[in-house]
Amino acid sequence: MYEEESNQILVQDDDPALQHPIIRQMVIQLRATDSYGTFDTWSDARVLDPLVMTKERRRAIPIVGDPDEIIITRIKAFYNAMSQMIEKETGIMATPVINISHEGFGRALILVGKLVALDKTLRDVHRFGFGSLDILIEDANKLVTKACELVNEHRVVAEL
Amino acid sequence: MYEEESNQILVQDDDPALQHPIIRQMVIQLRATDSYGTFDTWSDARVLDPLVMTKERRRAIPIVGDPDEIIITRIKAFYNAMSQMIEKETGIMATPVINISHEGFGRALILVGKLVALDKTLRDVHRFGFGSLDILIEDANKLVTKACELVNEHRVVAEL
Repeated sequence: MYEEESNQILVQDDDPALQHPIIRQMVIQLRATDSYGTFDTWSDARVLDPLVMTKERRRAIPIVGDPDEIIITRIKAFYNAMSQMIEKETGIMATPVINISHEGFGRALILVGKLVALDKTLRDVHRFGFGSLDILIEDANKLVTKACELVNEHRVVAEL
Repeated sequence: MYEEESNQILVQDDDPALQHPIIRQMVIQLRATDSYGTFDTWSDARVLDPLVMTKERRRAIPIVGDPDEIIITRIKAFYNAMSQMIEKETGIMATPVINISHEGFGRALILVGKLVALDKTLRDVHRFGFGSLDILIEDANKLVTKACELVNEHRVVAEL
């Protein structure tokens, strides 16, 4: 069977990033949405692999495109995982709200009480991904830290 | 041409409710989304009429149903109009965020800065409407008043 280089699995099974809490959480989230059992025989590395968007893979995706259900699931997994981390860190329930138009633009929010703890514009949703799992972790940590700071500064609103 | 009673236009052209600011705003919003010019020859009363959901009309709609684009447009018009009123009242930009699933459940938010000024669960979206224009105005006024109170209590967060 011929496979393009961009279809090879890039995440290694012994990648230490696989042990990071946000990655663990994303695996749980992704497996939870797999209603057809496709992932049953897949390693965590393989489940996460499509989230790694190298330059090569990006080049293989058309510039303009409609985001499909699978990509929206990945985006939701990312924001769900961050919500869980914010919840653990602040002790207050965090709720992700993802809004994506047919054209692949949108907005991702994480609400904590009446506080918008995280607000991100989504662009090029059909090419959603990260250069590597380490970059994913770094991006998520930055966003979670900023959100938790906001919650701690405005706890009265976050507890409403 | 045979028309069911439930298809008759219930909003009268001389209804004083048509002069209310929120209704004026909703007409603007609804006409703005009418890209095919269907409303060009319609009176304001006729444009607003489908928002009046009497018991009779409700009975004519299946209990379970997928919300179509036209209904989502009406819901957006309602929350856009309220956003405009909150903006006018508080002097801070208000942004509606509408999230509706295929099954007709969802959530409507109005964000003012980092504050969730309004947060409403949407149910039975395919039967969205109000008993009369007066009830629409009353409901909107209640929601707008509550949202503005929240903004004024937490202006620091609303101005973020």
